[in-house]
Amino acid sequence: MRFDGRSNDQLRPLTLTPGFTSAADGSVLIATGGTRVLCTASVESRTPSWLSSGGWVTAEYAMLPGATRPRGGRKANGRAKEIQRLIGRSLRAAVDLSKLVGPDGGVSIVCDCDVIEADGGTRTAAITGAWVALELALRRLVAGGKLSEHPGIAPVAAVSVGVIPVEGSEPEVMLDLPYSEDSRAIVDLNVVMRRAPEGGTPRLVEIQGTGEQGDFSREQLNRMLDLAEGGITNLLAGQQAALREASA
Amino acid sequence: MRFDGRSNDQLRPLTLTPGFTSAADGSVLIATGGTRVLCTASVESRTPSWLSSGGWVTAEYAMLPGATRPRGGRKANGRAKEIQRLIGRSLRAAVDLSKLVGPDGGVSIVCDCDVIEADGGTRTAAITGAWVALELALRRLVAGGKLSEHPGIAPVAAVSVGVIPVEGSEPEVMLDLPYSEDSRAIVDLNVVMRRAPEGGTPRLVEIQGTGEQGDFSREQLNRMLDLAEGGITNLLAGQQAALREASA
Amino acid sequence: MRFDGRSNDQLRPLTLTPGFTSAADGSVLIATGGTRVLCTASVESRTPSWLSSGGWVTAEYAMLPGATRPRGGRKANGRAKEIQRLIGRSLRAAVDLSKLVGPDGGVSIVCDCDVIEADGGTRTAAITGAWVALELALRRLVAGGKLSEHPGIAPVAAVSVGVIPVEGSEPEVMLDLPYSEDSRAIVDLNVVMRRAPEGGTPRLVEIQGTGEQGDFSREQLNRMLDLAEGGITNLLAGQQAALREASA
Amino acid sequence: MRFDGRSNDQLRPLTLTPGFTSAADGSVLIATGGTRVLCTASVESRTPSWLSSGGWVTAEYAMLPGATRPRGGRKANGRAKEIQRLIGRSLRAAVDLSKLVGPDGGVSIVCDCDVIEADGGTRTAAITGAWVALELALRRLVAGGKLSEHPGIAPVAAVSVGVIPVEGSEPEVMLDLPYSEDSRAIVDLNVVMRRAPEGGTPRLVEIQGTGEQGDFSREQLNRMLDLAEGGITNLLAGQQAALREASA
Amino acid sequence: MRFDGRSNDQLRPLTLTPGFTSAADGSVLIATGGTRVLCTASVESRTPSWLSSGGWVTAEYAMLPGATRPRGGRKANGRAKEIQRLIGRSLRAAVDLSKLVGPDGGVSIVCDCDVIEADGGTRTAAITGAWVALELALRRLVAGGKLSEHPGIAPVAAVSVGVIPVEGSEPEVMLDLPYSEDSRAIVDLNVVMRRAPEGGTPRLVEIQGTGEQGDFSREQLNRMLDLAEGGITNLLAGQQAALREASA
Amino acid sequence: MRFDGRSNDQLRPLTLTPGFTSAADGSVLIATGGTRVLCTASVESRTPSWLSSGGWVTAEYAMLPGATRPRGGRKANGRAKEIQRLIGRSLRAAVDLSKLVGPDGGVSIVCDCDVIEADGGTRTAAITGAWVALELALRRLVAGGKLSEHPGIAPVAAVSVGVIPVEGSEPEVMLDLPYSEDSRAIVDLNVVMRRAPEGGTPRLVEIQGTGEQGDFSREQLNRMLDLAEGGITNLLAGQQAALREASA
Repeated sequence: MRFDGRSNDQLRPLTLTPGFTSAADGSVLIATGGTRVLCTASVESRTPSWLSSGGWVTAEYAMLPGATRPRGGRKANGRAKEIQRLIGRSLRAAVDLSKLVGPDGGVSIVCDCDVIEADGGTRTAAITGAWVALELALRRLVAGGKLSEHPGIAPVAAVSVGVIPVEGSEPEVMLDLPYSEDSRAIVDLNVVMRRAPEGGTPRLVEIQGTGEQGDFSREQLNRMLDLAEGGITNLLAGQQAALREASA
Repeated sequence: MRFDGRSNDQLRPLTLTPGFTSAADGSVLIATGGTRVLCTASVESRTPSWLSSGGWVTAEYAMLPGATRPRGGRKANGRAKEIQRLIGRSLRAAVDLSKLVGPDGGVSIVCDCDVIEADGGTRTAAITGAWVALELALRRLVAGGKLSEHPGIAPVAAVSVGVIPVEGSEPEVMLDLPYSEDSRAIVDLNVVMRRAPEGGTPRLVEIQGTGEQGDFSREQLNRMLDLAEGGITNLLAGQQAALREASA
Repeated sequence: MRFDGRSNDQLRPLTLTPGFTSAADGSVLIATGGTRVLCTASVESRTPSWLSSGGWVTAEYAMLPGATRPRGGRKANGRAKEIQRLIGRSLRAAVDLSKLVGPDGGVSIVCDCDVIEADGGTRTAAITGAWVALELALRRLVAGGKLSEHPGIAPVAAVSVGVIPVEGSEPEVMLDLPYSEDSRAIVDLNVVMRRAPEGGTPRLVEIQGTGEQGDFSREQLNRMLDLAEGGITNLLAGQQAALREASA
Repeated sequence: MRFDGRSNDQLRPLTLTPGFTSAADGSVLIATGGTRVLCTASVESRTPSWLSSGGWVTAEYAMLPGATRPRGGRKANGRAKEIQRLIGRSLRAAVDLSKLVGPDGGVSIVCDCDVIEADGGTRTAAITGAWVALELALRRLVAGGKLSEHPGIAPVAAVSVGVIPVEGSEPEVMLDLPYSEDSRAIVDLNVVMRRAPEGGTPRLVEIQGTGEQGDFSREQLNRMLDLAEGGITNLLAGQQAALREASA
Repeated sequence: MRFDGRSNDQLRPLTLTPGFTSAADGSVLIATGGTRVLCTASVESRTPSWLSSGGWVTAEYAMLPGATRPRGGRKANGRAKEIQRLIGRSLRAAVDLSKLVGPDGGVSIVCDCDVIEADGGTRTAAITGAWVALELALRRLVAGGKLSEHPGIAPVAAVSVGVIPVEGSEPEVMLDLPYSEDSRAIVDLNVVMRRAPEGGTPRLVEIQGTGEQGDFSREQLNRMLDLAEGGITNLLAGQQAALREASA
Repeated sequence: MRFDGRSNDQLRPLTLTPGFTSAADGSVLIATGGTRVLCTASVESRTPSWLSSGGWVTAEYAMLPGATRPRGGRKANGRAKEIQRLIGRSLRAAVDLSKLVGPDGGVSIVCDCDVIEADGGTRTAAITGAWVALELALRRLVAGGKLSEHPGIAPVAAVSVGVIPVEGSEPEVMLDLPYSEDSRAIVDLNVVMRRAPEGGTPRLVEIQGTGEQGDFSREQLNRMLDLAEGGITNLLAGQQAALREASA
């Protein structure tokens, strides 16, 4: 059993609060354990200049200075840039960009992921939350007649998983790491998946694994992916519940 | 009567949620009407290099991109710098910096004010909220034995007031402007006050007034200050209520 | 009596040298006591992209490194940005921007205020001087047929005033503070006014007051504004004298 | 068969030229097909300020503007930062940092990876080459008495692998992608491995996989890792051959 | 004869106003024709960290935006950096840095050259003027007992010279080019010299020559240097006259 | 005789490797003694916005961090900007820009000079090498029908020369300085020349001379230019040999 009473394949408590803010076209506050990220999706009527056709989805990620102890800085660093590139790619895997076109041409959606409180897994929480904000914005575009067809391919969610040392025993593979586990992890793997069209197990969109304190075997990788698959299946269900609540 | 049903001397509904986040030493989510600001106070054990003695209090202010429609940028601009300088000065007026010294020397407190949703008056809401976050952090320092004496001088709060055109009539002086009034204001005045020690009307700490669409008379200024005094008296009471709730 | 022999309601000696440089469309060197600011107004035939109609007036403010002892840096900081925003707003209050349109469309005027020597009150000297440079540029545009009508609303000038501690007595309100007074001020107030059309007392355009070392009462504010009104009346007269000299 | 005649599990021709430059403590020019990267390792006698003990290894990655057609810019972008963080982590997995300490304290080694010519796989070539440069620098430190013990854990190498569309047939998994394949890849996976101490198959250090044009299954991931393992085994052999040549 | 009536070997009218500002340790306003540069020399009690012994002299150069028509920008560009490096080297040639040491260690002098009005030859005017400001600061340091010995080697001055096309005739070599000549120059040469100790012709410190519109011969170079020598001899005399006036 | 056995008027060994890389339109690796610079010329079909007609040639210069011991930084500094401006001007002297126009309008060529190994004279080696890369790109444009006429005026090459102290004797003038001589030079002169159309001695395009440790006389300047002329004559011959090899 883990320090917080969870089993190795158990997610932290998940709360999704759709409509947490109202200026953006879609918004959600996601809480996974002690990690909280405010995700907003803002529609813009212009697309990047290098894009020849279709629409675009991009993301920005930042951590509020007071989200950590000690206080962090406000300046975007290499880590933040890397994370927002990951979030953007993950969200684009959820959308058929060629259909993100309204009566006046291509549409961009910027998903801002601002970490309000950080306790590990901020990038995966950001992806899971940002997909909900994005979906809310897309539904609004469809409802408002700005898109003739919903451009969604499939929901996307993400989770972390790792190999964690266990005192007096072999290291174990654990799902959804809080900071206290993440900071001691031998291996740290972030997994992004999207729901399979046919309804089976979700399929991989991104994996990023790092042997923080050593290397890892193919067997360990497979065990980690098994746990991630289970966790993401639950996160995908949580997203749908939140959307039902939002439209209720 | 104003578009939202308020009288000219009435504040917008105020909510202060102390302890909204837990990593920082003090935090509060302040909502004044549609404006919401997350204020956190983080203690640091070093002071600026130019400071020869005592402690320091400073502030940073930013608006999350999704706080406005259309979406704003993330880059700190001149306006944000100007606002955070105002917040910092206002908060320092609430604290005897010479007493902000612990067993290991001077202490700094950084108050981060991140606007989650913007509907006018973000800088004054930030000041009113940040003072609560700061007070929570100071109480924690005292409770933890890091400060031998509470260094507070007096609570500080702020409000906006303006001269607003009224159709078919003379412009009127109104308190606590939302964006729809602020953007049409002839004169816009931000007032920061602190509670008088003897308990009478609060006293001025900062005033910043701009004739956005024209000039203004001494009489108009006085009428604006009258309304501000009343509003700030109520905000100071709201702060105390929130602190009682936090310590309950 | 003050250290330099002035009475509390007396300005420092004022010198305005119109045409100090000749490349810009308007220029003046303003000296108020030991503070000297070179103000130039440069006309540009394009306006900011966000401006839908009319012309624009903006300002830039900088302090030459050698203007202070010890030497200052060259990098624009938050203080400089804040000041140039104040100068820009103040100058725009002097001009009907909808009339700042020539045969080829809207016109911009950039007023550069470079402090050559700093002894307190640089921002208010910059406003008073920049208005003269701006007026010279506007007259030149009218004379050259680039504007069909002079777009001026009213002259604008500015002064500082403060509450200064006096040894062995109560603090006193004093006008036009040099550095030695400004650095000790309990309250520091910058006041910008424009000439009333009907010729009475000038009217407020901007006020910015800070309790640097404490708070202040409504009575003190009123006393400061009384002195500022008197000082600005004299500065407005000095501007007109300089313009007469320039056109002589 | 692929457009360049290789089979799906075949590496591009590999050339490692140790000692390509002589100012740095270790250097190698690595060529894998049309991709060429100059890797240098420079020893510095100071370590990052946040490091409490041991030494440090870090990397910088840049692409010379003339390395691509059309010419690229010189400004470090998010992609470059992300890549150099990957290279740094990979190299640190090759070294016991606690042993990177000389007579005068901790030592840093900066590995610069400058892409001279880019034809896909620049980040993996950089890792494979940088390890050789790093090893040369470490040997020099040991030979010069600056380190009492060689701090190496195991050689590290990297390769790309992907799922590539094949006309008139199912997509295929291919090893070591040049630009023409990489730009069409459905899935793109970069794999970093280090030699197993016991001499068996190399073990994972980093994996980064992206479904560029779709998602992927666990089976596809496994097939990609099979090819990567084979490729990296060959790259590890090539590194050893180059080191033998360098010391010959 | 040239457009302004000068002969080819004649300088523009020179005015040096020592003590133009009083905050800096030395200051001069130099005017050469329509070019005016404010030069100040500020003493700092610290030296660059890489300097192991002695003092240091450095320069900064900038053009005020209103110094040119059309208005220039405020951002330091490559040209400005190049010029300030030239000024710094030139001034260091005038001083024995090993003697720029006071009772508390090495001393730095920063010479700021701010162009108030630009009509060609701003960099050479800056050098000629900055030397005077520097000398005034050095004399003040000696007079105040901060330096036991005047560290001056010899006065330094600079001038431009060029090959200018002449309508209906061969191009001619001309001294001290205003903008209207400089912008048409075939060759542009900036020459910095210092007074010879023995009182003969001044000796070269820096030459920078560019064939802006073509190449040039050794003969043309020699003719340009002849004119520069004559001009600099006069500038050196002007500097001495200004210093006599300053100390009178 | 010098430390490396050369006579005072002798160049270091020169190697030019045309076509060192293949992505750029022209490339050469130039080695002069221990200094090696990779020069590439990239054609772009747009010209700077301020250019009203013709084409443009520009240069960028950087030093790879590993090119020096100790390792240098990656950030472009004032020195690098100054050097790339010199290279750009020198190359433009080799080309009739009015003829750098293809069927679709003006053409730009960017010459990147990246120093791979630095042992003095990197800027002059960059010029000599960049001209070859530029010439290769121009020939390719002509051969590909993108230019109807070769726009070359004359080949350009550059060399350094200096006055170097000699133990137990008078300082001597020496050609083509490596770092060990350059760092001790009393005078350092960089000379850029282009081949005379009539085939005589090359003519001056740029000279930049600095009395690093003192001043210098006209006689010394002439002696330096004599040596530079001889050296550049040899470099021009080396360039032609390399081009013959490249087209063989």
